[in-house]
Amino acid sequence: MLTNDQLDQWDRENFFHPSTHLAQHARGESPNRIVKTASGVYIEDRDGNKLLDAFAGLYCVNVGYGRQEIAEAIADQARELAYYHAYVGHGTEASITLAKMVLDRAPANMSKVYFGLGGSDANETNIKLVWYYNNILGRPEKKKIISRWRGYHGSGLMTGSLTGLATFHNKFDLPLSQVIHTEAPYYLRRPRKDMSEAEFVRHCVAELEALIAREGADTIAAFIGEPILGTGGIVPPPAGYWAAIQAVLHKHDILLIADEVVTGFGRLGTMMGSDHYGMRPDIITIAKGLTSAYAPLSGSIIGEKMWSVLEQGTDENGPIGHGWTYSAHPIGAAAGIANLKLIDSLGLVENAGSVGAYLNAQMQAAVGDHLNVGEVRGEGMLCAVELVKDRNATEFFDASEKVAPRIVGEMAKAGVIARAMPQGDIIGFAPPLCLTKAEADIVVEKTASALKSVLG
Amino acid sequence: MLTNDQLDQWDRENFFHPSTHLAQHARGESPNRIVKTASGVYIEDRDGNKLLDAFAGLYCVNVGYGRQEIAEAIADQARELAYYHAYVGHGTEASITLAKMVLDRAPANMSKVYFGLGGSDANETNIKLVWYYNNILGRPEKKKIISRWRGYHGSGLMTGSLTGLATFHNKFDLPLSQVIHTEAPYYLRRPRKDMSEAEFVRHCVAELEALIAREGADTIAAFIGEPILGTGGIVPPPAGYWAAIQAVLHKHDILLIADEVVTGFGRLGTMMGSDHYGMRPDIITIAKGLTSAYAPLSGSIIGEKMWSVLEQGTDENGPIGHGWTYSAHPIGAAAGIANLKLIDSLGLVENAGSVGAYLNAQMQAAVGDHLNVGEVRGEGMLCAVELVKDRNATEFFDASEKVAPRIVGEMAKAGVIARAMPQGDIIGFAPPLCLTKAEADIVVEKTASALKSVLG
Repeated sequence: MLTNDQLDQWDRENFFHPSTHLAQHARGESPNRIVKTASGVYIEDRDGNKLLDAFAGLYCVNVGYGRQEIAEAIADQARELAYYHAYVGHGTEASITLAKMVLDRAPANMSKVYFGLGGSDANETNIKLVWYYNNILGRPEKKKIISRWRGYHGSGLMTGSLTGLATFHNKFDLPLSQVIHTEAPYYLRRPRKDMSEAEFVRHCVAELEALIAREGADTIAAFIGEPILGTGGIVPPPAGYWAAIQAVLHKHDILLIADEVVTGFGRLGTMMGSDHYGMRPDIITIAKGLTSAYAPLSGSIIGEKMWSVLEQGTDENGPIGHGWTYSAHPIGAAAGIANLKLIDSLGLVENAGSVGAYLNAQMQAAVGDHLNVGEVRGEGMLCAVELVKDRNATEFFDASEKVAPRIVGEMAKAGVIARAMPQGDIIGFAPPLCLTKAEADIVVEKTASALKSVLG
Repeated sequence: MLTNDQLDQWDRENFFHPSTHLAQHARGESPNRIVKTASGVYIEDRDGNKLLDAFAGLYCVNVGYGRQEIAEAIADQARELAYYHAYVGHGTEASITLAKMVLDRAPANMSKVYFGLGGSDANETNIKLVWYYNNILGRPEKKKIISRWRGYHGSGLMTGSLTGLATFHNKFDLPLSQVIHTEAPYYLRRPRKDMSEAEFVRHCVAELEALIAREGADTIAAFIGEPILGTGGIVPPPAGYWAAIQAVLHKHDILLIADEVVTGFGRLGTMMGSDHYGMRPDIITIAKGLTSAYAPLSGSIIGEKMWSVLEQGTDENGPIGHGWTYSAHPIGAAAGIANLKLIDSLGLVENAGSVGAYLNAQMQAAVGDHLNVGEVRGEGMLCAVELVKDRNATEFFDASEKVAPRIVGEMAKAGVIARAMPQGDIIGFAPPLCLTKAEADIVVEKTASALKSVLG
């Protein structure tokens, strides 16, 4: 067995980690953590630390860790047929069955599912299909994609452009010109403090209308949004937001892409986030909760309106020139089937709603009145605590003070993993959907004590 | 157990297949194939057909199907820890060990490996890093990427732009403007038939020099190429090509990205294709052979020259804003370790060289003199038969005649899978590296008889 020292050395010499300070990691100046095993909501590292993971990996391990039903489904598939491609009408029992299960759980009027690997490549597929769609319809100028500031839709060149966060743009020459951004539906950061929620929704709509007028509706193909902003701060939309936005999109014949990578398969206490907010998307992006991350798999669920145009396109032009070698990978499909069955049999959608509401209420009760807490907010099994310098003036801390990272660091020492979201001082929670009330109590208690130790 | 009829219905109702005629598939007009199991070089479908897969999936199942050593490694990892992320210095024993094993197999002067999911996202990572690199070096204008016509580098928006094949561009508004293309090193399709190979290399160099002069070297960041053209036709470069191209790149301070998704881990009879052709890349793209497709995993191997600038970048700007949720996925890493061990223990790199040479020689002997065979070519365990209307005039068939697809269709009926490459009438072979001479004989025999039945 390899020693921890040996692994530490190899890690720093060879391994390029995502979203990491590369120089500090390579020089051994920043801590690493080598995760060994995990069960339920707990992970365990090779140094013997056991932590309650209140962020479910990267909000993806929806069913919790260590589910042997999924492990065995993966093992059986690996023994029988680890891989065959899905090009030119090829499939496996697993991939076909999962396609059926996904459509059964999708909103009305959805037609087909294309399987990819992760959320970024699924959104890449979506943009390609949207462009193809408008080319087939003879509207070659209708191509721009509107995203929101603080949206998160991936880390590629075009998908990182959809993302509306500075850390994914700076030094990468993003966003690319095909993507334009509009106002984030982030009520705490509304432009004027005296705006009501309804006024703020009207403001978001007016901003969108103005952007469309400036660019020309005939140049805009689609609008992409997460039902609830995720990496941008875990921010539920103000009441009435989606109905108002959809009315604008409908008027201008702009497609709606619902990015449900975080919200799909139960996180908001409904099977899909679109159901939760009454969204009627033309495409739905899925990943994370589709397999609970036990194997990489993403998907693009295509609505009937688009699908019929895609069929027309292949009738006119032959096979569609899009595919990943690992589209509909059998291991991912097997994991997805076992995962969706577990979500049903364990009642995790309902648990996300009930324990999520409990977590949010207890968090509000524990820290909501703290002078540096601007807001406790959430929906389903998502919760955020946003820290402010002065809650009355809604004045924010300077990023250099690293307030949220320090609190999250204290929490980790106390055995609870939360996430310091990337833009602002926001502590994010997205536990496995199997979280119990007793485990929620631990998360709340450790948050409150870390907050007290850092900010008093 | 699901019936084949039930699966067929679900398939056509719900499943959006890559690279497929969507309308014909949905209407049930084109055949589908539901693959059930596989072993060695053979796959078996649910209708009881057993086929020798002479394309190894999509040239990815390097070790062959049904390797229980990899299945068990996947099963063990799934039981112990199916997932944890690799952000902010997190890792697992599997991902760290595989990073070390990859670097041990890479050419000299390579420093770190970033793990993604598939080849497309790895090239997406590469472009992001190349742009970042030149921003850190204070050269914000040096950003364009040169690729070759007939190169294949992915199917995303930017990676599909790198790809130089019409089927991946048409109706998708590709290539994007950041990518420019130069001459394919495709001697059979040289501009004048009287050119010697050396003259053709000089022509390719002159074309590249002219492109650089037109665009300005200070606007060009990188050149990407497969050691041997893959999906563009399985075309080995003319002798001296890479040395001559690298001299030009060096002169203009243009980085070289070697896309080794097809050639990495043994296919050319050497561990890496860069070794085979004396390439000294700054980045190497890996996927397929890294895990033999048993689980999705790709990688970007970063050279020392770039790595030191990336470190400088994070010292100046903080953590790098790039990452996939499933970067360095433990299931993929476990599969990769078991796969690389098998490649070594079974001597598959050597077998690819020796049986690959046998396959190419036997194919040449069997069909090389046919009046409609323009060329039999290959390298290692890659082989292609290019069909022409008239071998003396090097006149090609019209695409509408579908000559190669018809031959490949005949071969499938006779139990051998080859691939009709997408641009031209080219029958491609890329069998598992464990192919035996007896199996090579079957491939050659079925090729010859299908050729005879279609073209006489």
